[in-house]
Amino acid sequence: MSAIMNDEFYMKLALQMAESASGQTSVNPVVGCVIVKEGRVVGLGAHLKRGEGHAEVNALRMAGAEAEGATAYVTLEPCSHYRKMTPPCCDRLIEAKVARVIIAALDPNPQVAGNGVTRLREAGIEVSHGLLEHQSLAMNEAYNKYILTRLPYVTLKSASTLDGKVAARTGDSRWISGAVSRQAVHTMRHRNAGIMIGIGTLLADDPQLTTRLEVPALHPTRIIVDSKLRIPLDARVVTDGEAPTIVLTTASADPDKRQALQAAGVEVIECGDGPNVDLAEAMRLLGEREISSILLEGGGRLNGSMLEAGLVDKIALFIAPKLIGGGAAAPAAFEFGGFDKMADAIILEAVKYEQHGDDMAIVGYPSNRRGAAERS
Amino acid sequence: MSAIMNDEFYMKLALQMAESASGQTSVNPVVGCVIVKEGRVVGLGAHLKRGEGHAEVNALRMAGAEAEGATAYVTLEPCSHYRKMTPPCCDRLIEAKVARVIIAALDPNPQVAGNGVTRLREAGIEVSHGLLEHQSLAMNEAYNKYILTRLPYVTLKSASTLDGKVAARTGDSRWISGAVSRQAVHTMRHRNAGIMIGIGTLLADDPQLTTRLEVPALHPTRIIVDSKLRIPLDARVVTDGEAPTIVLTTASADPDKRQALQAAGVEVIECGDGPNVDLAEAMRLLGEREISSILLEGGGRLNGSMLEAGLVDKIALFIAPKLIGGGAAAPAAFEFGGFDKMADAIILEAVKYEQHGDDMAIVGYPSNRRGAAERS
Repeated sequence: MSAIMNDEFYMKLALQMAESASGQTSVNPVVGCVIVKEGRVVGLGAHLKRGEGHAEVNALRMAGAEAEGATAYVTLEPCSHYRKMTPPCCDRLIEAKVARVIIAALDPNPQVAGNGVTRLREAGIEVSHGLLEHQSLAMNEAYNKYILTRLPYVTLKSASTLDGKVAARTGDSRWISGAVSRQAVHTMRHRNAGIMIGIGTLLADDPQLTTRLEVPALHPTRIIVDSKLRIPLDARVVTDGEAPTIVLTTASADPDKRQALQAAGVEVIECGDGPNVDLAEAMRLLGEREISSILLEGGGRLNGSMLEAGLVDKIALFIAPKLIGGGAAAPAAFEFGGFDKMADAIILEAVKYEQHGDDMAIVGYPSNRRGAAERS
Repeated sequence: MSAIMNDEFYMKLALQMAESASGQTSVNPVVGCVIVKEGRVVGLGAHLKRGEGHAEVNALRMAGAEAEGATAYVTLEPCSHYRKMTPPCCDRLIEAKVARVIIAALDPNPQVAGNGVTRLREAGIEVSHGLLEHQSLAMNEAYNKYILTRLPYVTLKSASTLDGKVAARTGDSRWISGAVSRQAVHTMRHRNAGIMIGIGTLLADDPQLTTRLEVPALHPTRIIVDSKLRIPLDARVVTDGEAPTIVLTTASADPDKRQALQAAGVEVIECGDGPNVDLAEAMRLLGEREISSILLEGGGRLNGSMLEAGLVDKIALFIAPKLIGGGAAAPAAFEFGGFDKMADAIILEAVKYEQHGDDMAIVGYPSNRRGAAERS
């Protein structure tokens, strides 16, 4: 494969660096930067961790004096506002006297949102944006929602048979999808701040909800929806200390159990005073705690409730080419009241199909997600 | 796209001609033939209709005297036995003095099965086989089963939502899949000798079960599984005269209703004396009537029964990227008792994924099909 060197070539490199940091920047976006001068790459950088250097800063540091007169490729609009003690990236680029800045996507953060471009232009730097914009927006889709709404971006992941089942009529579910799909799912865990299941799944499987890959990876915060605090104190997510655990419950939950969980290091959050956890309220409270993205790996009922409430932003449904049968006794990936007319069904928009070994992943954005109208 | 001329180039052309006749040769295989001499195509042929010329005969007729010393590309081994009054194709190729015969697949028909190759070689013709063999076998998969077992090749087709439903909880199902998928299904109807549904689907939808494409096409024989002869005499498949209709029933069905249906031109076949149609017996009786291939478009229960009985050879499941919900009230594509262990699930072997517009088709061969062990 012979690559053709052009603006896209350098922007793709910047995007790849950015994507490699997906999952490790907390509420910050992933950003990559490549600085090129007279045909030579002189600086490479990415934002790797919240509170540490931005992509442009890292790349400018590598470039040193060579940045003068160079072109900087940045996947996201450079910031124009002071955060804590750090001067904005725009100022750094201006100081370094780069000649040209090529940007993939503007920053939806209202504190930036075009101000970065304006500031650079006012300093006499040639600026363009929109190159591979879609790729940059896609890798920051959680950030793009969170920065505007302070609500977590929810990706529903499920793995089912061709007949839509997540287990046999006996509950046996080892394994539905193949090894390749399961590795893809663990990569999704690494890239999300939280992972959410219902108490039914916890009681059935006592899962760890950690990220298990060939390489070390980050574990999301474990979030259990448990209206009646039925979670056992010896559940693995309570005792193993692998990652923080949050239990979502209601005002009527047993205060003793609540205290015992808190003593074990679990954060218990009250979400409304109804019989069931108020899921919309739960999203708000998790957002306040800077859980900016959630991988929902619920059973059919939790999936259905989240979906019906318009709280699911994205769906990744892994389908294994097998048939297990069992009718209503075998649990399904989605359980919800549903619609009278096929024409009213929830559509997966911008749907994509990915093959993972013998399995298929169907990925798209449910048409009833909150804010879908504004965003599309 | 610049094609590269070589043996594959001509064999592909022969395969395309063969495939174009898929559905119109009754119990015969589809076969294509290209004759090439000194760098020029001199003859083209396909078997177009049972009882009419074989592919080689049509191509040799076009080639005339030019066939001498030429190379014939044939997608299926030329026949070596007399049928009715026609001499075998091997004799025609020998008479025409072709120099070389290149064959895609040997004919599983025990009357041929390598005898064609032997006969040609004995006459001094250079013969090879196996070029694009898989393509030829795939387009004759129904023939390959029927010629050996006299049982129809059953392709189960279903269209469901991501949650495995074939209708909303109200029964509404217009439409699940998109226009592109529906055209693909109608092409499947054209290519099958029969189309089979259960009485439940007939009573719900009163379907025509004809082939509706942009171009005129062939209609399969309509086959209704109706243990108690509940089919109304004014059902469209009874009255419209568009294609033959067969009703499968049991010995205990009402003789008056049976007579009325026969008087209306419907063939009624008794399949066992149990409370339900004996599906294995039904396949045997349909095979006797030269229904060599069936497209099964049943509801969940008929699909499940056929599948459990090992009578399904192939599955084509169209999945539309939408979610309709409705739990057990919304009918599913497959309803059957099923298995206790996920490891015992029926697997779709040699699975392929095809995108049709926004829908995905998952196509494969259920691991429990009868004769799977021998054939794989």
